[in-house]
Amino acid sequence: MDPWSRDLTGRLEEIQIESEALRGNPLGDPHVRPLWVYVPPGYDDDPERRYPAVFAIQGFTGQLDMWRNREAMRPTYVEALDTMFAAGDAPPCIVAFVDAWTSVGGSQFLDSPGTGNYHTYLCEEAVPFVDARYRTLARREHRGIQGKSSGGYGALVTPMLRPDLFAGVACHCGDSLFESCYMPEFPKAVRALRDEYDGSYERFWEDVRTRPLGTKASDLDLFEYWGYAACYSADPDGTVRLPFDLRDGRLVEDVWGRWLAWDPVRMIPDHAETWRSMRAVWLDAGRRDEWYLDNGMVAVSRELEALDVPHTLELFDGGHMSIGYRYPRSLAFLAEALSRRA
Amino acid sequence: MDPWSRDLTGRLEEIQIESEALRGNPLGDPHVRPLWVYVPPGYDDDPERRYPAVFAIQGFTGQLDMWRNREAMRPTYVEALDTMFAAGDAPPCIVAFVDAWTSVGGSQFLDSPGTGNYHTYLCEEAVPFVDARYRTLARREHRGIQGKSSGGYGALVTPMLRPDLFAGVACHCGDSLFESCYMPEFPKAVRALRDEYDGSYERFWEDVRTRPLGTKASDLDLFEYWGYAACYSADPDGTVRLPFDLRDGRLVEDVWGRWLAWDPVRMIPDHAETWRSMRAVWLDAGRRDEWYLDNGMVAVSRELEALDVPHTLELFDGGHMSIGYRYPRSLAFLAEALSRRA
Amino acid sequence: MDPWSRDLTGRLEEIQIESEALRGNPLGDPHVRPLWVYVPPGYDDDPERRYPAVFAIQGFTGQLDMWRNREAMRPTYVEALDTMFAAGDAPPCIVAFVDAWTSVGGSQFLDSPGTGNYHTYLCEEAVPFVDARYRTLARREHRGIQGKSSGGYGALVTPMLRPDLFAGVACHCGDSLFESCYMPEFPKAVRALRDEYDGSYERFWEDVRTRPLGTKASDLDLFEYWGYAACYSADPDGTVRLPFDLRDGRLVEDVWGRWLAWDPVRMIPDHAETWRSMRAVWLDAGRRDEWYLDNGMVAVSRELEALDVPHTLELFDGGHMSIGYRYPRSLAFLAEALSRRA
Amino acid sequence: MDPWSRDLTGRLEEIQIESEALRGNPLGDPHVRPLWVYVPPGYDDDPERRYPAVFAIQGFTGQLDMWRNREAMRPTYVEALDTMFAAGDAPPCIVAFVDAWTSVGGSQFLDSPGTGNYHTYLCEEAVPFVDARYRTLARREHRGIQGKSSGGYGALVTPMLRPDLFAGVACHCGDSLFESCYMPEFPKAVRALRDEYDGSYERFWEDVRTRPLGTKASDLDLFEYWGYAACYSADPDGTVRLPFDLRDGRLVEDVWGRWLAWDPVRMIPDHAETWRSMRAVWLDAGRRDEWYLDNGMVAVSRELEALDVPHTLELFDGGHMSIGYRYPRSLAFLAEALSRRA
Repeated sequence: MDPWSRDLTGRLEEIQIESEALRGNPLGDPHVRPLWVYVPPGYDDDPERRYPAVFAIQGFTGQLDMWRNREAMRPTYVEALDTMFAAGDAPPCIVAFVDAWTSVGGSQFLDSPGTGNYHTYLCEEAVPFVDARYRTLARREHRGIQGKSSGGYGALVTPMLRPDLFAGVACHCGDSLFESCYMPEFPKAVRALRDEYDGSYERFWEDVRTRPLGTKASDLDLFEYWGYAACYSADPDGTVRLPFDLRDGRLVEDVWGRWLAWDPVRMIPDHAETWRSMRAVWLDAGRRDEWYLDNGMVAVSRELEALDVPHTLELFDGGHMSIGYRYPRSLAFLAEALSRRA
Repeated sequence: MDPWSRDLTGRLEEIQIESEALRGNPLGDPHVRPLWVYVPPGYDDDPERRYPAVFAIQGFTGQLDMWRNREAMRPTYVEALDTMFAAGDAPPCIVAFVDAWTSVGGSQFLDSPGTGNYHTYLCEEAVPFVDARYRTLARREHRGIQGKSSGGYGALVTPMLRPDLFAGVACHCGDSLFESCYMPEFPKAVRALRDEYDGSYERFWEDVRTRPLGTKASDLDLFEYWGYAACYSADPDGTVRLPFDLRDGRLVEDVWGRWLAWDPVRMIPDHAETWRSMRAVWLDAGRRDEWYLDNGMVAVSRELEALDVPHTLELFDGGHMSIGYRYPRSLAFLAEALSRRA
Repeated sequence: MDPWSRDLTGRLEEIQIESEALRGNPLGDPHVRPLWVYVPPGYDDDPERRYPAVFAIQGFTGQLDMWRNREAMRPTYVEALDTMFAAGDAPPCIVAFVDAWTSVGGSQFLDSPGTGNYHTYLCEEAVPFVDARYRTLARREHRGIQGKSSGGYGALVTPMLRPDLFAGVACHCGDSLFESCYMPEFPKAVRALRDEYDGSYERFWEDVRTRPLGTKASDLDLFEYWGYAACYSADPDGTVRLPFDLRDGRLVEDVWGRWLAWDPVRMIPDHAETWRSMRAVWLDAGRRDEWYLDNGMVAVSRELEALDVPHTLELFDGGHMSIGYRYPRSLAFLAEALSRRA
Repeated sequence: MDPWSRDLTGRLEEIQIESEALRGNPLGDPHVRPLWVYVPPGYDDDPERRYPAVFAIQGFTGQLDMWRNREAMRPTYVEALDTMFAAGDAPPCIVAFVDAWTSVGGSQFLDSPGTGNYHTYLCEEAVPFVDARYRTLARREHRGIQGKSSGGYGALVTPMLRPDLFAGVACHCGDSLFESCYMPEFPKAVRALRDEYDGSYERFWEDVRTRPLGTKASDLDLFEYWGYAACYSADPDGTVRLPFDLRDGRLVEDVWGRWLAWDPVRMIPDHAETWRSMRAVWLDAGRRDEWYLDNGMVAVSRELEALDVPHTLELFDGGHMSIGYRYPRSLAFLAEALSRRA
C-alpha cells in the first residue's frame, strides 16, 4: 500500500469561478467557487485532441477540498483515477469537480429560494466554463455526470432538468425513494428536538452555533433534514418548510408532496426520452447502506426497466460510507461510453 | 429482591372460554381460549361487593401464558399487581387477561378476514363472560382496558369501536402514528426479502417453517409486518396485502391508506364524544422506544388535547422492552377512576 | 406453530427441597428451594424401569420458574423435550431442574462465602434427593448435567469438582476463557460507575434498590460483575473483591488470579482422568455470541483435544440469547450416551 | 460556518526530510518523509524572535496529508490553530507535523524491528531538523509534543524515552491501560480470522491485498492488532508475535508482557523525575470513547497524581472520532506554558 504523495501522471488544475447565478444567494454563501479540473495523461502532448468530460459532484456537507480527504491506506479519488488513466484502463477523459456547498449543508444541485441557484450554476456556468477553457468534446454525447449520495441524486436529476447536457450518468447510492431513505429518520429528529431543544429548531440553531457541528449525537440528523427542506420545500421568500410536524413527527402531506415531486423515482417516468437517449447509466449501492439506498437504486432501476432503458445496477457488500474506491469503476464505464463516436 | 414463588393475596383463576366468534377462523387457530381472571384480596370475604374490571391485553406474538414470563430480578405483572392491592395502594379491582394470539402473531384486537374476529371475541364474548362469572360492576363506567405495544393499540382502538363498553384506557407505547412506528421498518423487510429470499414471502414462509422463528436476524421483521397486514389490509377472501412493494419498498398507496384508516391518531377525531366521556386515559412510552412510540403517544395526546380530553402522558427513560414494571402504575390509575361512583 | 397449553405426554413434578447447605447463607436467600422433575412418557407404566438423569441448571439471574418463560412462537424447553421423548427421538430420561438463584444474581454453582454453598447443595442434596424419589439409574455412568451461560459454566465445572457424579456434560456457551468473556466488559462497568455513581458501588446499590433492576442501561453490567465476584473472589468473611480497580478499570492481578483459577479452560488440564472417562461431552455456541463464548467453547475444545477427550463442538449462526431451541439437541445427545450400559 | 479556502495568517511550509534512521526499514517504506512546519503570524516580521515548538503526531493509519482532511462544516486543524494565533488567543508557536506512517498502519513512534526506527527518526532527525531550519527556542523547556490516539500514545511515551527533549505533553485519548483499550478487541479479531480466514493471518493478508482495506467489516481490527504487534512485540528478525492465540484468543502471557512493558500506565512510575519536571501535561478523552480511552486517561492521571505531577484531565461528552476541534485547546495550553521563561 502506498502512502501520501503520489505524483500525478495527468494534471489537476485548481481554479476559481465567479458565479452570477450564486451572487446574492439567500444564505450569503460565497459566489466565487473553487473548481478543479483534471486533465488526463497526454493532454498536453496532443493539443488538437478533445476529450469527453465527466462532472463530479459531492454528497451532503461536501466542500470541494474534501476530494483531498484521505482514508486509511487508500488513494484519494484523484490519485485513483489518475492511476487508472495512466495504466490505460479507461479511455482518457477530463474530470471537472464542481462545488455546490452551502451553509445549510448542500444544495441538492437544485435552484431553490432556500439556498440559491445551484442547478443554474452547474449547468449554465460550470459546464460552459469547462468547455471554454479545456479541450472537451463539448456536446451532450460526450458529457457525463457522476456523484455519490446527494451527489448521486444530482447526477440523476440534473440530466432530467437539462436533457440537452448529459448523456452519461453515474449514481452511487443517490437519494431516491424518499419514503425509504428520508422518512425513517424523521422520528429521530423529532425526538432530538423534543428532548434537547424543547421542540424548537431555533434553539437547536442557537445551540449549535456555539460549538462545532457534530459534537452532539443528534446534530447531523437535525442539520441534514433542515438542509434538504431548504432545497426541496422552501417558500418563495426562503422560509423553510419541514415535511413533518416538529412536535410528533406526523407527516405534513403538502410539504411531503413537494419533496416527492423531487424524488428521482417519481420523476423518471416523465422523462422517458431523456433516459432512452442516455449512452451510459450506472447505479450502485451497498447492501447495508444506512439510508437504504440499495432499495432506492433498485427502485430507480425498475423505473428505467419500465422504460426499457439499458443500465447497470450493482449492489455490493458495503454500507454508505468509505466507498470512494468505487468511483473509478463508474468513471471508466462513463469514459468508455462517452468516448465512442456518437 | 424476591425470587420465584410468592403466594398471592388475591387469587388468579385460569379458565377457558369456547368462542363462537373464533370458531372456523381463517388461520385454523384454536377457538377455545385461555382466560385468566385475577380477583383482589377480600373478594371472597364480602360476597356482595362488586368491583371495577380492567381487561389486560398483550403485544404482538403475545400468548396468554407469557404473563407468567419472569424477567431477571423482577416480579411478574400478576405478582406485582397483587402486591399493590395487598398493600392497599390502589382500590381493588378485577383484572381479566384475554388471549388474542394468532399463528401470524396477533390480531391487533380487530375483526379481519386475514386472522379472525378477535374484536368480536373480546367485546361480545370475553367481556360478558367475565361479567357473568365475576362480581364486576358491569357497566362502562367501571370497565377499563389496558395493554402495551399491540395491546396498547387494542386499548386505544377497542373503545372507539365499542364506546358502550369502556370508560378507562391505559396505553403503554401502543402502535400509533403509523408513518413513524411502522414505515421505518419496511426497508429492512424489503432488504431481507431480497437478499435472503429472492424477494418472495413464499420462500420466507417455506424456510421459516423448517426452523424456530427468530433463528435468523430478519425473521421477526418479516413475520411482524405480514402479521399486521393480515389485520389491517387483508382482502375479504383473506389475501394479505402488504403496504409496500416487495421488490423495492415503494409505498403502495391504497394499501397504506387501509392501514392509516386504522391508525389511532387518525381515528380519534371521529370519536370525540367517546373520548370526552372517558373517566381515565393513560398514555406512556419510553423516550428511547425502538419503534418511536414516544412520538406516537405524543401524537395521540395532541389529538386528545385538540378535543379537550383530559389524560395523562408520561415519557420515561427507557425503551420498548422490559417495561412491565409500569403496568401496575396505570392499573392503579384506572382502578382509582373506575372505582368512583359514576 | 402451536400456541400455549400443550398437555405433556410425560409429567412435570414441581416440588420443594429444604437445603441444609443453604440454610443461613450469607445473603439471606431462601434455603427452601423449588425443584422440578420431569419424568418421561411411560414412566408410570413400567414401575421397575430406571432411567438416566440429566440435571438442568440455569444462567445468571435464572430462577427456576423462568423455565416456564415462553418466547414468541416457540415451545418452552419442557414442552420441547416432552415432544422429543413422545416422538421417540431420544431414549427416555429423567430431567431435574435445580434452582441456584441468589439475590446477587446467581452462584456459578460453586460454594462461596459471598453467596452460599450452592455446589454442595447441587451435589450433596439435589442429586441424592432425585435419586431417592425417582427411579434414576443412580450412578455416575447414567447421570449428566446440562446448562447454558452460567449454567453451561456449572455444567463444565461441577463434574471436575465431583468426578464421581457426572459422566455427561452439555455446555451451551458456558462462561469460559475469562479474558475473552469477562474482561471486555469491565471498562463499561467502570465508566458507568464513574459517570453515574461517582465511582462507588455503594451508590449503585442504593440507587438500584429504589427501582426495578434494568431500568438504567448500565444496571445489568454492574450487577453481573459484582455477582461473579461474589462467587469467584469473596473473602472468607464474605467481602466481595472486584478484579478491577473501580476508578479506572486497571486489572487487580491477585483478584483476577482468583477468577482465573475458576476458568474451565485453566481447570481442565488438572482433571484429565475425569474428562477421559466422560461418556458424552457437548459444547456449542453462537458465532455471534455477545460474550464471545464461541471463542470460549473453542478454547475448551482445544484443552479437551489436548487430552484426547472425544467431544462434540458446534458453532452455529446465532448469538447468546434465544437459543433454548438447542437444549433438546444436547439432551438427546446426553440421553443417548447415558442410556447405554456402562 | 465557513467553507473551504481560508487564507492562513501564519504560513504552512511543506517540506521533505531524508531520514537515515528510516533508510532500509524492514517494511520497505519510504525513508524520505514529508514534514510540515507551521509558523505563526508575525514570524517573518521579527527575524530575531524565537518561538516554542510543538510537534504534532498522528493516530494509527495516519499519513501526513490527512491533516488536510476536512470534516463536515469544520475547519482543519491547521486552519483552526491559525485562527487561534491570529486572534491572539494563545502565545505564538511553531507547530511541526511529523509523519510516522508505515505500511502496517503506524509505528507507535517507537523503534521496532517490525517496522523501523521511528522513535529515532522523530527525536534525532525531525526535532534537530526543525530546530536548524526554524527559529525555535531549541531547548526542552520550550518544546512540546501533541497527538491523538496512537499519536497521544507517542506524546506520552516519547518524553519518557527522551526526557531531555520535551517539557510539554498533550495527549488526546492516547493508547493506555492496555487491558482496557486493546484486550476487548482481541476476541473480535479471533472470530473474524476463524470465520473468514480459517484462522490464518496469511490468508487475511492474501485476501486484503486484492481489494481496498476496509471493504470487509473485520479488516480494520485485523489490520490494527497486527500493526500494534509489529511495534510492541516483533522479534529481532522482524517476526511479529501476536499477544493472543489465533485459534481461540487465549492470552499469550509472554507476548502480552512485552505489550504491557510499553503501556504508559506501567511506564510512568519509572520516570518520576521526567514527569515532575514537565511544564505542561494535558490529558483528555471522550466519555464514550469506543476504546475506553477515557478509562486510560484516568489511569494515566492517577499515576501522575501518585507522583504529584500537576496536569489537566478533561473528560468530555464525545467518542474517539471527530474530536480534532479539541487540538487547538491543548495547543494553547502547551503554548502558554512553553512560552514562559524557564
